[in-house]
Amino acid sequence: MTALQTTILENINSPADVKKLSLNEMKILAQDIRQGILNRVDKVGGHLGPDLGIVEATIALHYVFNSVFNSPQDKFIFDVSHQVYPHKMLTGRKQGFLDPLNHPEISGYSNQNESEHDHFMIGHTSTSVTLATGVAKARDLKGEKYNVIALIGDGSLSGGEAFEGLNNASVLGSNFIVIVNDNEMSIAENQGGLYKNLKELRDSNGTCTNNWFKAFGFDYIYVEEGNDIETLIKAFESVKDSVRPVVVHIHTLKGKGFEKAEQNKEWGHWSIPGLISQNLSPSGGNAPECYETITKEYILNKVKEDPSVIAINAATPGVFWWDKEFRNKLGKNYTDVGIAEQHATGYASGLAMNGAKPIFGVMTSFIQRAYDQLSQDLALNNSPATILVYWGGISSADCTHLGLFDIPLICNIPNIVYLAPTCKEEYLRMLDWSVEQNEHPVAIRVPASNYIVSGTEDKTDYSILNKYKVAAKGSKVAIIGLGDFFELGKQVKEELKTKLNIDATLINPRFISGIDEDLLNSLKSNHDIVITLENGTLDGGFGEKISRFYGNSDMKVLNYGAFKEFNDRVSMSELNKKYHLTKELICQDIQKII
Amino acid sequence: MTALQTTILENINSPADVKKLSLNEMKILAQDIRQGILNRVDKVGGHLGPDLGIVEATIALHYVFNSVFNSPQDKFIFDVSHQVYPHKMLTGRKQGFLDPLNHPEISGYSNQNESEHDHFMIGHTSTSVTLATGVAKARDLKGEKYNVIALIGDGSLSGGEAFEGLNNASVLGSNFIVIVNDNEMSIAENQGGLYKNLKELRDSNGTCTNNWFKAFGFDYIYVEEGNDIETLIKAFESVKDSVRPVVVHIHTLKGKGFEKAEQNKEWGHWSIPGLISQNLSPSGGNAPECYETITKEYILNKVKEDPSVIAINAATPGVFWWDKEFRNKLGKNYTDVGIAEQHATGYASGLAMNGAKPIFGVMTSFIQRAYDQLSQDLALNNSPATILVYWGGISSADCTHLGLFDIPLICNIPNIVYLAPTCKEEYLRMLDWSVEQNEHPVAIRVPASNYIVSGTEDKTDYSILNKYKVAAKGSKVAIIGLGDFFELGKQVKEELKTKLNIDATLINPRFISGIDEDLLNSLKSNHDIVITLENGTLDGGFGEKISRFYGNSDMKVLNYGAFKEFNDRVSMSELNKKYHLTKELICQDIQKII
Repeated sequence: MTALQTTILENINSPADVKKLSLNEMKILAQDIRQGILNRVDKVGGHLGPDLGIVEATIALHYVFNSVFNSPQDKFIFDVSHQVYPHKMLTGRKQGFLDPLNHPEISGYSNQNESEHDHFMIGHTSTSVTLATGVAKARDLKGEKYNVIALIGDGSLSGGEAFEGLNNASVLGSNFIVIVNDNEMSIAENQGGLYKNLKELRDSNGTCTNNWFKAFGFDYIYVEEGNDIETLIKAFESVKDSVRPVVVHIHTLKGKGFEKAEQNKEWGHWSIPGLISQNLSPSGGNAPECYETITKEYILNKVKEDPSVIAINAATPGVFWWDKEFRNKLGKNYTDVGIAEQHATGYASGLAMNGAKPIFGVMTSFIQRAYDQLSQDLALNNSPATILVYWGGISSADCTHLGLFDIPLICNIPNIVYLAPTCKEEYLRMLDWSVEQNEHPVAIRVPASNYIVSGTEDKTDYSILNKYKVAAKGSKVAIIGLGDFFELGKQVKEELKTKLNIDATLINPRFISGIDEDLLNSLKSNHDIVITLENGTLDGGFGEKISRFYGNSDMKVLNYGAFKEFNDRVSMSELNKKYHLTKELICQDIQKII
Repeated sequence: MTALQTTILENINSPADVKKLSLNEMKILAQDIRQGILNRVDKVGGHLGPDLGIVEATIALHYVFNSVFNSPQDKFIFDVSHQVYPHKMLTGRKQGFLDPLNHPEISGYSNQNESEHDHFMIGHTSTSVTLATGVAKARDLKGEKYNVIALIGDGSLSGGEAFEGLNNASVLGSNFIVIVNDNEMSIAENQGGLYKNLKELRDSNGTCTNNWFKAFGFDYIYVEEGNDIETLIKAFESVKDSVRPVVVHIHTLKGKGFEKAEQNKEWGHWSIPGLISQNLSPSGGNAPECYETITKEYILNKVKEDPSVIAINAATPGVFWWDKEFRNKLGKNYTDVGIAEQHATGYASGLAMNGAKPIFGVMTSFIQRAYDQLSQDLALNNSPATILVYWGGISSADCTHLGLFDIPLICNIPNIVYLAPTCKEEYLRMLDWSVEQNEHPVAIRVPASNYIVSGTEDKTDYSILNKYKVAAKGSKVAIIGLGDFFELGKQVKEELKTKLNIDATLINPRFISGIDEDLLNSLKSNHDIVITLENGTLDGGFGEKISRFYGNSDMKVLNYGAFKEFNDRVSMSELNKKYHLTKELICQDIQKII
């Protein structure tokens, strides 16, 4: 693979170089940047549509503001980093887009370790205005002068922290510039009254009476031609060094310059590798059966039986494969609340408390945005809503999107029943039990890998809480394999037999949030060691509760899972080695203490 | 103590009785309710100002809406429950206000276990609109017809979940009524651009151009006379059965009818017992030295040295005794962000990342509203902000305000250093280290009780992380007493000596968020039992990490702390007995396994 050749970008090594360009050269630069985005996304995947839409604005930002010359320099803070690729290319990191050899060197997110032009590590939405308010206040306290610019858009405005930030930024009393990148979209469609107001503003060229930003006290400028560099430069120049908080609302085209992404904006938001080289397209084929497909089928059937069943998500329907066809079939039995996990959780609780049957699908990394709602709105009320937690587990993901923390987050809140199925049959049984019962808030950790069809019907009554299942009775060593790590448990059992001639007991706990005291006590009679396996962080997790339980006994306990750390794109082989998550390493550990 | 006699309230046993009253009788009822509020708050403490202000509106609500006659009935959801006392008095619970014998029977918060007229247990702010959106959607899915009314105010609008709720409620497409109780206050003063807009609306009698609610798409009515029953009845009648989302903005007087609370609204927000009987007043006397006073003194001195130091809180300055004098002295070095813990956390991170020295004070129960900000905005960025966590620990508090969950919440997030001082000297040393260092996000658990002056200067270098301090060397049993439970550890040590003639080792871990592996390993040589004591929930907490550490060894470990449960006003003696948090019970446990 060779590096992509470009015309102007070739010579851009820092924002200082952007300032030397003519308008025509900047237009060619925009083409170069688009090629760079497509080149990288084709090779390693990443955010596509939002980055393609923000190319011109990023060039104009670096042209107008002093992001490198002056000291202290103007500071840009890019919300959620969906729109940070062009900025990266203009700030010394273009090779990460142009040359496949350099792709791994840069992350897909804002990252202060990569460049002095990034000020934060950012991957969750709706944080930019809040962080920038802190940056601006620090500037003011230290008596410094420069522009602080938060760039927010792509659905991020609907998250509560964005609102809390705007409410406070608007009374900061000094320079503060918010660029609202309005590409008419969230990850999927935008949701809510605020976005209706944005449409009204677009339709009236920014002149309509109701103006959400002005109501906060912001000055306000509307830029219809949000992909025209010249217009953007004028707009940014007009607010530069403003001493009042100001919103620049720019209307851009998500996916601009790549036809398939322009035409199907939801599909074009983020792409797996192969965009061009494998000619990926929105249609796709029929997927093989998996947790995503059986969940959809379950929900569709259930809604037919019971009109009070409702599927909820917070702006990421694609994660669960809740495509347009699925959404259309559900109609009023579907709500996308936009990027608003707090609302989604409380909304689900309100629905369940008033007799409906909500099923809220959410990514591990994002359910943590709603801890207080899980605790107060849901658990304290024993509201019988169902939450499906996807993508939990140890992975090579970016440090901003780790699926490691859901177990400590959820299983330590009283009243919530957190379940870990190990196969299709258990999952569907748990799901239906949860939807039909009326006693507990229930979360189910949908396995992120290991789609297992056991072939055996699960007839468990999950209303009898915290009953673990003994999959195989043995002695000396008991293996408790939680959720998708039950498969690792099976491997360890085999290895123990082969290497140490131990017939280990194998247990599928199914309940993350509680202890089966009777079973654990019964193990004491003929076991010396219990090992726990969980696909998540150990600190505050499932295994520690087993360790605590056995603290007053002679039982030895080994907990396996991830350490407490933010890993950034570390390979699974490295992590498995470090955390001893292989049958060989676990057997060696057991051998040492047996 | 005898029950208070009232004129009209005497005969009100349900909302049905309110409907029979004449306007004059309702005015007398308002006086009765005020007497009831004052009577209860004088005896048991509670929310005063917000309840006094909402009396007339509550009478009008029950007069206009069918909160009992029809089935299904109209549903009121009271945000944060600061304003729920009059509602309680009209819905069969008046004796809880009138008769001291009945005071303990009702809680200070909305509680569905007390009455069918309450629909949720609510004690945290900004949740009403979200919960009500779920209630309304369930109504629509089931094809039912009634009014759903969220009553929000008293500062709660600035919390992110309120905004997320409004954004989605505004597009619900069916009946949804939001009553904004604008008493010009939060717990302290209101903060932010939104509240400037409320003032503009008040000043223009609701007619000004910028209207935050209309920008969402809500219909909007302004009621200047928010304490006039007749006016309120007309306003509520005009929106009853509305099929569009509507906001009724009512202007009320916080503290109405009790002069001291009208004149000092912040003081009158909530009162300890003795309001009338002890003639409590805002002035107060000089407080003895305690963690609150030394923190204030530290901050004031620090700001003089370094203008980049800034004290932050989210609408609860009174919790930290940050009174007006303190706030005025700090000037620009103080920010109250309003009820907006997410913003406060991200704002602190932004400040620290740009070289300022933020100190964010927060209550245990409310820091959980910012988990994702702790994780993403703060910890992932290793932003060296300081967070002071107040009121952590086991208590007889309402189930909505427990201080039990901060340790699992904070100590399982990578990078955050969570510290537990045991005395004044340690606390000040930790605080100053945290403010001056530049490496870690730091949280300090300010002891909620046990103000101990050890008299010995603490010279510890806290940049050497996770070094526990051995307070007394012994053998057989090692006691690890965390933070304010170090005192309990001392008692257990004495009891062990007296009863079992054991010279136990006593350890002050100081670090909640990490393990001192060297020390713990060294204990193996001459100790058989380690006990951990923590003033919080065991699940996901500090002690479980010690249990995990010793899992592969012969060391026995006993963890002491609270169980995973939401207790509601349970006495400390009962809890201490249940959790074995006395020296006698702990020694008995040790004796059993030694």
